[in-house]
Amino acid sequence: MNDRKPNLTFTIFLILTSALFCSAQSRVEVNLPDIPGYQTLKCDFHMHTVFSDGDVWPTVRVQEAWLEGLDAIAITDHIEYLPHSQDLESDHNRSFEIAEPLAEQMGIVLIQGTEITRKMPPGHLNALFVTNANLLERESWWDACVEAKEQGAFIFWNHPGWKAQQPDTTRWWDEHTRLLNAGMLNGIEVYNHQEYYPEALDWARQKKLTVLANSDIHSPTSMTYGAKHRPMTLVFATDKSPGAIKQALKENRTVAYFDNQLVGDRQYLTPLFFGSIKIKNKQVGLENHQIKKVQIHNDSDIDFHLRLRQPAIGLSCPDEITLEAHRTIFIDLTGTSDEVKAMDRLRLFYEVTNLRTLSGSPLPVNLDIANR
Amino acid sequence: MNDRKPNLTFTIFLILTSALFCSAQSRVEVNLPDIPGYQTLKCDFHMHTVFSDGDVWPTVRVQEAWLEGLDAIAITDHIEYLPHSQDLESDHNRSFEIAEPLAEQMGIVLIQGTEITRKMPPGHLNALFVTNANLLERESWWDACVEAKEQGAFIFWNHPGWKAQQPDTTRWWDEHTRLLNAGMLNGIEVYNHQEYYPEALDWARQKKLTVLANSDIHSPTSMTYGAKHRPMTLVFATDKSPGAIKQALKENRTVAYFDNQLVGDRQYLTPLFFGSIKIKNKQVGLENHQIKKVQIHNDSDIDFHLRLRQPAIGLSCPDEITLEAHRTIFIDLTGTSDEVKAMDRLRLFYEVTNLRTLSGSPLPVNLDIANR
Amino acid sequence: MNDRKPNLTFTIFLILTSALFCSAQSRVEVNLPDIPGYQTLKCDFHMHTVFSDGDVWPTVRVQEAWLEGLDAIAITDHIEYLPHSQDLESDHNRSFEIAEPLAEQMGIVLIQGTEITRKMPPGHLNALFVTNANLLERESWWDACVEAKEQGAFIFWNHPGWKAQQPDTTRWWDEHTRLLNAGMLNGIEVYNHQEYYPEALDWARQKKLTVLANSDIHSPTSMTYGAKHRPMTLVFATDKSPGAIKQALKENRTVAYFDNQLVGDRQYLTPLFFGSIKIKNKQVGLENHQIKKVQIHNDSDIDFHLRLRQPAIGLSCPDEITLEAHRTIFIDLTGTSDEVKAMDRLRLFYEVTNLRTLSGSPLPVNLDIANR
Amino acid sequence: MNDRKPNLTFTIFLILTSALFCSAQSRVEVNLPDIPGYQTLKCDFHMHTVFSDGDVWPTVRVQEAWLEGLDAIAITDHIEYLPHSQDLESDHNRSFEIAEPLAEQMGIVLIQGTEITRKMPPGHLNALFVTNANLLERESWWDACVEAKEQGAFIFWNHPGWKAQQPDTTRWWDEHTRLLNAGMLNGIEVYNHQEYYPEALDWARQKKLTVLANSDIHSPTSMTYGAKHRPMTLVFATDKSPGAIKQALKENRTVAYFDNQLVGDRQYLTPLFFGSIKIKNKQVGLENHQIKKVQIHNDSDIDFHLRLRQPAIGLSCPDEITLEAHRTIFIDLTGTSDEVKAMDRLRLFYEVTNLRTLSGSPLPVNLDIANR
Repeated sequence: MNDRKPNLTFTIFLILTSALFCSAQSRVEVNLPDIPGYQTLKCDFHMHTVFSDGDVWPTVRVQEAWLEGLDAIAITDHIEYLPHSQDLESDHNRSFEIAEPLAEQMGIVLIQGTEITRKMPPGHLNALFVTNANLLERESWWDACVEAKEQGAFIFWNHPGWKAQQPDTTRWWDEHTRLLNAGMLNGIEVYNHQEYYPEALDWARQKKLTVLANSDIHSPTSMTYGAKHRPMTLVFATDKSPGAIKQALKENRTVAYFDNQLVGDRQYLTPLFFGSIKIKNKQVGLENHQIKKVQIHNDSDIDFHLRLRQPAIGLSCPDEITLEAHRTIFIDLTGTSDEVKAMDRLRLFYEVTNLRTLSGSPLPVNLDIANR
Repeated sequence: MNDRKPNLTFTIFLILTSALFCSAQSRVEVNLPDIPGYQTLKCDFHMHTVFSDGDVWPTVRVQEAWLEGLDAIAITDHIEYLPHSQDLESDHNRSFEIAEPLAEQMGIVLIQGTEITRKMPPGHLNALFVTNANLLERESWWDACVEAKEQGAFIFWNHPGWKAQQPDTTRWWDEHTRLLNAGMLNGIEVYNHQEYYPEALDWARQKKLTVLANSDIHSPTSMTYGAKHRPMTLVFATDKSPGAIKQALKENRTVAYFDNQLVGDRQYLTPLFFGSIKIKNKQVGLENHQIKKVQIHNDSDIDFHLRLRQPAIGLSCPDEITLEAHRTIFIDLTGTSDEVKAMDRLRLFYEVTNLRTLSGSPLPVNLDIANR
Repeated sequence: MNDRKPNLTFTIFLILTSALFCSAQSRVEVNLPDIPGYQTLKCDFHMHTVFSDGDVWPTVRVQEAWLEGLDAIAITDHIEYLPHSQDLESDHNRSFEIAEPLAEQMGIVLIQGTEITRKMPPGHLNALFVTNANLLERESWWDACVEAKEQGAFIFWNHPGWKAQQPDTTRWWDEHTRLLNAGMLNGIEVYNHQEYYPEALDWARQKKLTVLANSDIHSPTSMTYGAKHRPMTLVFATDKSPGAIKQALKENRTVAYFDNQLVGDRQYLTPLFFGSIKIKNKQVGLENHQIKKVQIHNDSDIDFHLRLRQPAIGLSCPDEITLEAHRTIFIDLTGTSDEVKAMDRLRLFYEVTNLRTLSGSPLPVNLDIANR
Repeated sequence: MNDRKPNLTFTIFLILTSALFCSAQSRVEVNLPDIPGYQTLKCDFHMHTVFSDGDVWPTVRVQEAWLEGLDAIAITDHIEYLPHSQDLESDHNRSFEIAEPLAEQMGIVLIQGTEITRKMPPGHLNALFVTNANLLERESWWDACVEAKEQGAFIFWNHPGWKAQQPDTTRWWDEHTRLLNAGMLNGIEVYNHQEYYPEALDWARQKKLTVLANSDIHSPTSMTYGAKHRPMTLVFATDKSPGAIKQALKENRTVAYFDNQLVGDRQYLTPLFFGSIKIKNKQVGLENHQIKKVQIHNDSDIDFHLRLRQPAIGLSCPDEITLEAHRTIFIDLTGTSDEVKAMDRLRLFYEVTNLRTLSGSPLPVNLDIANR
């Protein structure tokens, strides 16, 4: 390079080496099955960059998303909190503009978003699918939400139980009812960063809000989550496109995925579970007084913890089972009646304690095992 | 328990706790695809127990096989080398008899085998599918092989380049030709324990011997291999049964799998490779002067190392690619001619350096990528 | 080798390759500090081999002990339960005799032991430091214990809360009182295999029994514990010798180490904790309204979980701290009074929740931090 | 928060949660011993932030340094290459100013640096210990270097073999000689990012340049290095201070540490090696025809690969040894003469193939083992 005027050769070399560097990285897929009728998209709709109070350049959010197996993300820099404003110009669309070309190249769906950042009530709200974030810079939060809605936004309440804003009790305010009634509150985070809000789950069920789990990451993701996965919103969409995601979010087709937990509507949890496991025995052929080993494989990234819900008929089976991620285990079935020999199918009644329905209770599952 | 007469209650409790203990373990599947027409069975046909010079009870070999994702094993205790004979009775069928019921329960195919253990020539020979190993205890090794053959055995030469028996050069002896001509030498280990024998690969090709890779393990497997996989013989069988395995072995339908290497006939390596990878882009739409990212997923346990064999037409692509196990990577394709825009399909000419055909050369593979 | 008469060359080669194989393995040290006046020896005094109902040859127990960082072990095959007797001669001294030469070579202290295996009462008892286990094969368990004591044995009660023998409540029987009074009950397992017995801890305190944690392993250890450490009895001995270990056991100088827990007398837990951690700041220089970061390094294998016991004077500090194994963390101290500036030393009052004294309560620790 | 004016409460909460978040992280120490007379400081003197072409906010560089066990770093943003200038003001001192307070808090020595970024010759030069980077923005690179020198800088040549600037051969230019003669070239990177330059090592030896290994990281470090350590310059300093580091750099007291390699002056490599290992046997007592096991512990993070340099007297020992990081291994010594019994000390002559002196040859080491 020559005296501050980067010549073309230099620039090309930088691009080349940068491309080479990227090639050396690899993506870890998130292993969770699609469900009948829908793709299961892995999404994170809440994160920051240097353009608000985050620590990374917008392209890093795309690289991280690709490396960590995500399908779609939204960068949601604060409208009202800009601690780097001494150094950075404040155009609320910049982080999206900068990240967009890389997202396109990498096949990551990048949804334009922003965070309306107010004291409680109504607290912090994310608006996804906005078209011009600068127009949301308004004196009143209500006006900001109206503007977002006019841009076609999907709006959700962030970290509703955040101690910084709700130190004592996690409550629902009249302002949230107003937003809800005006169609300006469509979803709610039941999980944010490293924190779970059981109250939010209740509200999601009662008020038909879409459940979300997001990272709200400010640092590089690996600095917070290390080798663990970040929180994700699983979106059940007809295809991998912004439109299909928007439609799914509007129709509550999501499950929150964080730590080793899934939380959401039973109609989505059930096929996620049964799409993950496979009973490997063809026929068990159990008879009274016999012990037979049944092998079950779990092809997903989640360890499923099962607890017996009620006894099986004609046999005994373990009180608790852990179906480890990407492993096969066996369980022992013991025949306890003469009738078992004649049964075509053995049915085991469990519940999955780390899969929670909208009512907060474990997902009931029946394991059917061919006997003859 | 009371005074050396184990009562029933005690025994039952021991069984119960033993069963509980086993339930706590889980099986790691070996992720390699089936190929058209055949299941890909993961097998280890060479191992020892306390009944010869091994360190474990026969049931441990079955437990290890199950935990490590194997489908079939043979316990092959030495006929002629019994260092524990001061403590253990020497019935050459005992290790099979003891392990068999557990193998049945766990769904592991246990093949009865034994090791004819002689100085060079002919060295050590494993006989699989024997029915009474005691009858192989003969003064002459020729007679032992004849007996094995009469029992229907598949016989292979173990660790042909073992320095203890072939310290200077690894050679093929007249005695091996005699065995071969008499139909009493059907396979050869190209890999044993932690050692590779390139000469054996040549002989396998020239003499139509079945290639094998086996552990020859004496200690608990994890003490030698830790978290790595043991060497395996991949058998391409019509089903998971002793008969189908025997048929496959007789028809040379195997590939040796050790470390991060596959060695065998190109007709099996090719579908193993293409069954493992998936190009994730639908259409690349490459034009001249453009760079497009192609994403490739590898669903297998093997890191595939690809090297460019010849240039592609109308585009440039990386000289080297590593398709990491269970990861997605991307490569950059750069359009270098105007014609590329009109091509329906982009073809990349690579070879896989860690997949070796019987001639010892890297497997050639052509990656076809839909362009329009 | 020639027709069943192993010649010398063959044998030497086998020994050589076996030695080579062993050289390839490496030992993971257990990182826990010595304490003033004593070495901290890592011991496991309960395990089985094929000579009773275990799954491995006795030498494997020595190899495992070396690989896993142990200093001393006892092989304690059952006197009365010999399920392999059809295949193995029953000399109760054989497992010790076979393992001893390797233990000597590898620097592992091998203590001769055996398990007196009876129904409850008194259940299973281990006798360590016996000189001829065959003499313990007696009709009555009392006579077996008397014989053990005459041989100078240290006797302890195994898995006192084992559900197979104490299905409903874990109780202390009159027979145990008799043994105790006769000096034939010297210790008790508070942890066995994968199970903890809180009642045993109470009895240890009340009756001055030595606390032990042992594996009672039957399979290869890695098959049960994988990459985790097995349960261990930490013995505080004047040197690494059978005599010093016996003396330490008789004087109750032990701590039970299992999972991420230490359980034992406060006089040993306290120096184990303080010998593990180091405050890295020289002087903090805290003043009112300031926040200062204090860095603490933990050089041990244990994650210490600390909980605030009472507030510090003149400052606030975190309610909970985790000192991760082999890591440095920092905590924030906030000055809350003007006096803090003049304090030479800041004292923080915590308790370590995963270090339990004989009374079962968390170990109290005071962290002193130089301020000026 | 209310209408863009962050109130105090909000700000305090943000700070608090940020502090809490940081507490959850832990530092991995780099385990390499100090050497007689000096502390071994782990340093990285080349890295970028959003203030030139990097991807992270300056504070991230300090957090990463702390988490990864470093003692000192220099942020060295380009003077002449500012691709983010559309969004960020270009004050070349800003990245230092922003990172400095956190470095102070965390105990990381932050050295002000900058990168003079020119085409070849002279290529890219880092200037450490500058006091005002803005003054280095000069038309001519010579003037920039003169300015740096006047500020007291230590100047080194970055990635001298970088293909983007030296595509064919890695050569030393007249301009470098001019810089050297003017005292404006004091060191050279023998390793940069993921690349090693053997020519640089030759020049370092011939021209008395200080050897350095640096990351030149642009992304978050974990995105490039994952769980591996980044390249580091080990600095042997009298204390952990900018002054002592500057003194050490000027006196060539460094070793380059990258991958599993150390490269530098033999006078530093030798104590690093011997400070890392410990022979655990007190006295071996070897006699002719005996085999004795010697146990060697390696307390460092480096796997040392040893190769026999010449035979020992009176005994044989392995041709190759690997001393795995944080492990103990044993080697077998075999007595081969009657004299060995009388020797007080057994001396083994090895060289460490992954420790390279300035001449590029393996470090010779003699292992002395007490025999009697």
